Amino acid sequence: MEALLQYLNNIRPLSDGLKKHLMRTVGSTRIKNRAFLLKAGRVCNRIHFIEEGLLRCFHVKGESEICSWFMKEGDLAISIKSFFEQKPSYESIQALENTVLHYITYIDLQLIYQEFPEFNFIGRVLTEKYYTLSEQRLYAMRMQRAAERYSYLKETSPELIKRVPGSHIASYLGITLATLSRIKARR
Amino acid sequence: MEALLQYLNNIRPLSDGLKKHLMRTVGSTRIKNRAFLLKAGRVCNRIHFIEEGLLRCFHVKGESEICSWFMKEGDLAISIKSFFEQKPSYESIQALENTVLHYITYIDLQLIYQEFPEFNFIGRVLTEKYYTLSEQRLYAMRMQRAAERYSYLKETSPELIKRVPGSHIASYLGITLATLSRIKARR
Repeated sequence: MEALLQYLNNIRPLSDGLKKHLMRTVGSTRIKNRAFLLKAGRVCNRIHFIEEGLLRCFHVKGESEICSWFMKEGDLAISIKSFFEQKPSYESIQALENTVLHYITYIDLQLIYQEFPEFNFIGRVLTEKYYTLSEQRLYAMRMQRAAERYSYLKETSPELIKRVPGSHIASYLGITLATLSRIKARR
Repeated sequence: MEALLQYLNNIRPLSDGLKKHLMRTVGSTRIKNRAFLLKAGRVCNRIHFIEEGLLRCFHVKGESEICSWFMKEGDLAISIKSFFEQKPSYESIQALENTVLHYITYIDLQLIYQEFPEFNFIGRVLTEKYYTLSEQRLYAMRMQRAAERYSYLKETSPELIKRVPGSHIASYLGITLATLSRIKARR
């Protein structure tokens, strides 16, 4: 919880009133490796801050699962469209390690935005940050071949290559596990 | 200009002070069909509101241009990563029709966020909206075959199919113009 408050405070100093309100409002939870934080078809009604652990976001296409991203300690975890529009999610979020999270519900967050206007500054800056990261991933996906996408991932998120099982990395890169192994062997 | 103020006011009523400040700060410009609003390599230092017209966002890959999106009247136009990080853009923005725009510079926008904290509410809501649309496009791109992507585009943005030249639509869908013609003929 201290990590979350520090994270927010670094973007814009929190007033005492807001800090107290957050301490009353923020919930905490732990989920085991392989457990689901969100299942497709449900509405994502909490925004999570990951204190410890690792999660993947994926959707099902035909018979296979497609990873769209990974989230680790210090990251926020939501299904974007489902959370912002409060509609059923097309994607699922699953733990890849035992994970410790703090969360605010969608309704509580809207109340905070109304009652503590200063929090809109923080919300705006965080949304801009994650939007930029998402655009960067999209660009990497459109621009590069599989080997280049792997190099880019290794360069920008080296810790993911170490922690995420190869099958999920391959799925994120849009290639088979065999192709991923060939790319790694060639390097 | 009235259209822009109305657009912002619909998200959250603007105070008189903010309205007056915006009327002093917002600039206006017109660009001709085929002219560039932003060239790759330059920093995107203005956020634009399109009052009239149509633009495409694209980047160069090898010998070809890849369209990443189209923006029309009522939309905001920026290169996300370049604007939010104030770094050189990897993409260009070009008019596809004669276009009328209003804009705020990055520096002026940061000052507005500081001096009129209420504007952070509007900035946050708009960022959430465009982030959600971007995620939706990314999902459509990952999920579907070319014919499905075309159907999805026609369903969600029918006016683009009418106004954007086929070569740019094909580029956005990641297919050749010949494949796009075959898909259209089959329907």
